[in-house]
Amino acid sequence: MMTTGTKQPTSPESSLVSIRTDELAALVEGQLVGNPHLILSTLAPIEDGNPGSLTFIRSKNFASLWASSSCSAALVTQGVEVPGHDPETRALIFVPDADIAVIKILKAIKPQTAAPNIGIHPCATVHPDAQVHPQASVGPGCVVCQGSLIASGVVLTANVYVGQNAQIGQDTFLHPGVVLGDRCTIGNRGLIFANCVIGADGFGFLIATPDRPVTKVPQIGTVEIGDDVEIGACSTIDRAKFGVTRIGHRTKIDNQVHIAHNCIVGDDVLLCGRTTLGGSSTIGNRTMIGGAVVLNDQATVGKDVKIAGGAIVLDEIHDGETVLGVPAMPARTALANAAASRNLAKFCRRVDKALKKLDPDYKPS
Amino acid sequence: MMTTGTKQPTSPESSLVSIRTDELAALVEGQLVGNPHLILSTLAPIEDGNPGSLTFIRSKNFASLWASSSCSAALVTQGVEVPGHDPETRALIFVPDADIAVIKILKAIKPQTAAPNIGIHPCATVHPDAQVHPQASVGPGCVVCQGSLIASGVVLTANVYVGQNAQIGQDTFLHPGVVLGDRCTIGNRGLIFANCVIGADGFGFLIATPDRPVTKVPQIGTVEIGDDVEIGACSTIDRAKFGVTRIGHRTKIDNQVHIAHNCIVGDDVLLCGRTTLGGSSTIGNRTMIGGAVVLNDQATVGKDVKIAGGAIVLDEIHDGETVLGVPAMPARTALANAAASRNLAKFCRRVDKALKKLDPDYKPS
Amino acid sequence: MMTTGTKQPTSPESSLVSIRTDELAALVEGQLVGNPHLILSTLAPIEDGNPGSLTFIRSKNFASLWASSSCSAALVTQGVEVPGHDPETRALIFVPDADIAVIKILKAIKPQTAAPNIGIHPCATVHPDAQVHPQASVGPGCVVCQGSLIASGVVLTANVYVGQNAQIGQDTFLHPGVVLGDRCTIGNRGLIFANCVIGADGFGFLIATPDRPVTKVPQIGTVEIGDDVEIGACSTIDRAKFGVTRIGHRTKIDNQVHIAHNCIVGDDVLLCGRTTLGGSSTIGNRTMIGGAVVLNDQATVGKDVKIAGGAIVLDEIHDGETVLGVPAMPARTALANAAASRNLAKFCRRVDKALKKLDPDYKPS
Repeated sequence: MMTTGTKQPTSPESSLVSIRTDELAALVEGQLVGNPHLILSTLAPIEDGNPGSLTFIRSKNFASLWASSSCSAALVTQGVEVPGHDPETRALIFVPDADIAVIKILKAIKPQTAAPNIGIHPCATVHPDAQVHPQASVGPGCVVCQGSLIASGVVLTANVYVGQNAQIGQDTFLHPGVVLGDRCTIGNRGLIFANCVIGADGFGFLIATPDRPVTKVPQIGTVEIGDDVEIGACSTIDRAKFGVTRIGHRTKIDNQVHIAHNCIVGDDVLLCGRTTLGGSSTIGNRTMIGGAVVLNDQATVGKDVKIAGGAIVLDEIHDGETVLGVPAMPARTALANAAASRNLAKFCRRVDKALKKLDPDYKPS
Repeated sequence: MMTTGTKQPTSPESSLVSIRTDELAALVEGQLVGNPHLILSTLAPIEDGNPGSLTFIRSKNFASLWASSSCSAALVTQGVEVPGHDPETRALIFVPDADIAVIKILKAIKPQTAAPNIGIHPCATVHPDAQVHPQASVGPGCVVCQGSLIASGVVLTANVYVGQNAQIGQDTFLHPGVVLGDRCTIGNRGLIFANCVIGADGFGFLIATPDRPVTKVPQIGTVEIGDDVEIGACSTIDRAKFGVTRIGHRTKIDNQVHIAHNCIVGDDVLLCGRTTLGGSSTIGNRTMIGGAVVLNDQATVGKDVKIAGGAIVLDEIHDGETVLGVPAMPARTALANAAASRNLAKFCRRVDKALKKLDPDYKPS
Repeated sequence: MMTTGTKQPTSPESSLVSIRTDELAALVEGQLVGNPHLILSTLAPIEDGNPGSLTFIRSKNFASLWASSSCSAALVTQGVEVPGHDPETRALIFVPDADIAVIKILKAIKPQTAAPNIGIHPCATVHPDAQVHPQASVGPGCVVCQGSLIASGVVLTANVYVGQNAQIGQDTFLHPGVVLGDRCTIGNRGLIFANCVIGADGFGFLIATPDRPVTKVPQIGTVEIGDDVEIGACSTIDRAKFGVTRIGHRTKIDNQVHIAHNCIVGDDVLLCGRTTLGGSSTIGNRTMIGGAVVLNDQATVGKDVKIAGGAIVLDEIHDGETVLGVPAMPARTALANAAASRNLAKFCRRVDKALKKLDPDYKPS
């Protein structure tokens, strides 16, 4: 995870409450091969750990680093062979899936996120016609407008704004400064990070003509966000011109992503940091999009698509494709073009020279 | 607007209060051709509507979809011919400009944005030396500092911060979490979306030398925003080093746009989502800039320019030009280069092969 | 700084309190050559000023504009010759470094940023188990959670959120709407602009498999920010998966920058507007990165590197390199490729034609 090339001091370890290797094997229901009495107190990448560190081995590549690692123990995906293991001094714990076992441990040791008490904080402003479930938490500085509906288990940490007739489903957690616009809705078990804005107006104008200036098109639609959605800090999702901007179930959106009016994003989609979706663009289920990608207005991206970071999508990407580049094109073509492009100046000089040799009348430029 | 290729469920319609086709024709002062008694209750794109939907036809392209559309009625720009119309069962309403007529309808049916009552909310903090007009609304959690001036009809919804000696003109609406820095000003009838930050320091430093570390240049200038300006959520406009960062009248700025110190943006400019203006760059009147565009520091873009999304402008774009690409260049050249670039690897292989055939000494790479 | 080509009205001057040239020379401890009695009341770029304006001359280029400038006085870096100076009517003040002298003046005339009084504002919410130094200022709408530590001289202007067990060092200033997550820390003398979010969860998920949906990896790490760090408005720095996301001392970060989980950024680094660092990427000391740059996940950028705006870094940049382009490559190669790329369509046509002439069997496409 860290590299040593640049020599910055790093401290990639994270404290665990101390746990013994045999206790850990029991916790993750794994098979212990090695010393059951080692005390583990940190979690670390395999190349950075120290005695007392627990790491994980999900593939042959990671396994090959075990012999030289200083970590005391590793969670290993069953079926991966780990050469150079000394069961006297270290411990391997075999589990069906090391990644899932790590998640189990991280969940067990994760400190709880700060949250206000259940009920309405005296410094919150809740409209008498809003419905706030008695099991919801509305923190200081929060504003909940008329007609809005806050379900059981919802947490509005602090300085959160919930517009008129907006709705938030059960157990959804809104970090400080989130703004949910009028009539927009978020489903159950959502996680919305700080200063995210849902439901600003779409950017819709009639462009200026000699007869009239730029003219705003009223944006009367809404935003609907499914269940189990995560949205990053300072991301923005605009309301539809009319109709709905929709984010599907279980979709995860990173920080500073911008989703314009009338976009339809499917279920189980991943959108990495600073990606931008132009107006009325659509994304199918299970598609994964890297960072800083741009989708043109009305672009249609199918399901099970993979788009590499930095790509610009002009129009359509079909189901199951893997694309990259500007404009986005199938990976094989894009990589070949990128390689050619990296040597372009050299290639041009060589070709001009060769043609000049063959044809004295050829004019290089 | 929506496509059916990816099979996501869509609901692009928007509720209207029910209105009869003859009433609608009267409302927009249009000429009704067809059934006057149809009840319209939704607004929808021509390819997505249902019986009861109103749509609009601004061009031949839209008109060609009318015969197969399920919509009951359409607003049509006069002069556009609409084939396949059955005046018994459906209705066309001809108006000088269908887009303008739609705006008239959207305005009529748009629910009002939630806003605090006129006056100062008890949970707001207003400095005694600030001047807040009695017809302004200052919502809960807002902070208005010393010497600032809030004109009549201004709405500060909630958790808005107005710095020292800042000014906001008549009928300007600030959504939650907006921050207006000290001494910055916004004109009349502005619309500023949530968590937008106006007046952070410009990014100005003397770079490190062997003798001293990176050194901050104090940023003592301000930001001046004209009348009728719209600025999107989480956009940032920095104050000038000294002097002014200026946004002209009627200019519209989308979400997550970044405008650096000392930029001068003209009147009637459109800046789409996530565009970045480097320090001291300038943009002339009526210029339109697509999404995720980057202007280099000191770039000068003329008036009536069009810049396509994703472009990088290095230095100067002249009045009236249409440009795109990295770096931005005239559209015709850019498109030709882009086409060539898309086949580059293939082209290089072909040329290398042809030259090798002609000249056995040619070395492809 | 401004250009006149696009004819926008500009007002690049900034008011000074009026000062006489001899007083100014004394203030900056410079050597006055010229009229000691001129009154200076504005600060302006050399090409934009008026009588009464002070400007600065740091190089031969600026010096060549002095003869035609309307400014009354200039701060000049010693050793720069200034042709066309009339010491009767104007004044030059020689100093070791004109840039540093300007900073001295800007500091002297900069109006103080609005800040709440020392102590805890009655509209703030501070947990009884938080430690707020009596010399700190906690403004209206701020929320300070349990176990957090606010040092002497810290200013939380308004609506700032400080999570559980978070720490803020001496004299650090947080503008409105900043969110500092649980257990994250900021060093001394920091300056954090409005709506910046430090400590949102890293974007870490196990991708969906046929057996299970996308699964969140709990993000239990933190963010550690060094001393004398500046971070721009709406920037986001995510907490580590485990371990730490670290920003070194004296590093300056512009607006809307996104720094993902587990990044390690060195000391004295400059990151310009809208740059994105992918997860676990690292940057060495004194490196300068332009605007809208993207670092891939795990990219490693050495120390003393310069990366031009708009570049995409795929993997590694070595110490001291200057790179640009997509992907980022050494400047000389990148510029040659960019030049070739700008004429690509023309080149392809020319080569196809020449080959066709030499070989009638050649098929251009």
